[in-house]
Amino acid sequence: MIDFDKAGGLVPAIAQDADTGLVLMLAWMNREAFEETLRTQRACYYSRSRGRLWRKGEQSGHVQEVREVCIDCDADTVLLKVKQVGGAACHEGYESCFFRRVEGEELTVISQRVFDPKAVYGEN
Amino acid sequence: MIDFDKAGGLVPAIAQDADTGLVLMLAWMNREAFEETLRTQRACYYSRSRGRLWRKGEQSGHVQEVREVCIDCDADTVLLKVKQVGGAACHEGYESCFFRRVEGEELTVISQRVFDPKAVYGEN
Repeated sequence: MIDFDKAGGLVPAIAQDADTGLVLMLAWMNREAFEETLRTQRACYYSRSRGRLWRKGEQSGHVQEVREVCIDCDADTVLLKVKQVGGAACHEGYESCFFRRVEGEELTVISQRVFDPKAVYGEN
Repeated sequence: MIDFDKAGGLVPAIAQDADTGLVLMLAWMNREAFEETLRTQRACYYSRSRGRLWRKGEQSGHVQEVREVCIDCDADTVLLKVKQVGGAACHEGYESCFFRRVEGEELTVISQRVFDPKAVYGEN
């Protein structure tokens, strides 16, 4: 279904809010993460920084319930349509990780925080 | 603005229809592609297969007029909100490259073709 070998074992996965169409985040999947996502209908990614599976929401409780999984024409990108529990996909507390817009040479924050990251993840 | 060095020179770029919210495609950008996109307000990617800049629509005429450029929290993914000229982003003639949905062990086509690829790109 996806040629993970072609892509070096990891493919990008976009999460989009199933109801609003807001693009929430981009993460990565290896075969194991993809298969777990299909099996459990909860988004499971592969964390490149941690070098292991990352069950989205495992720390915050903000899981992503998967409504639909689409594959692109080259079979090397995944699009998940999800319900984002907790209302925010971003670890910085925003609904979407794409909360900054390029304006000239500047980045402008275009969203409001849904939660305080320190309250969810602690102070560190 | 984006740390291209961290990401090995290329970052994923998502194109989303600015009006409908449909996720159209995912491609890649190097620094040059990103800067050209900002400068021209037309989507310019880096084609990994061709090893050069890919001005979306250079062959088909189906350019992407860029309405908004957003950056994610880690500054390693780009989200473009675009107007897709010609009505289809996918070289296979679909509005979105994500025209197939995973259903069990199968992939189901969930869109209609907007154009005939042979008519746009020729027979080869």
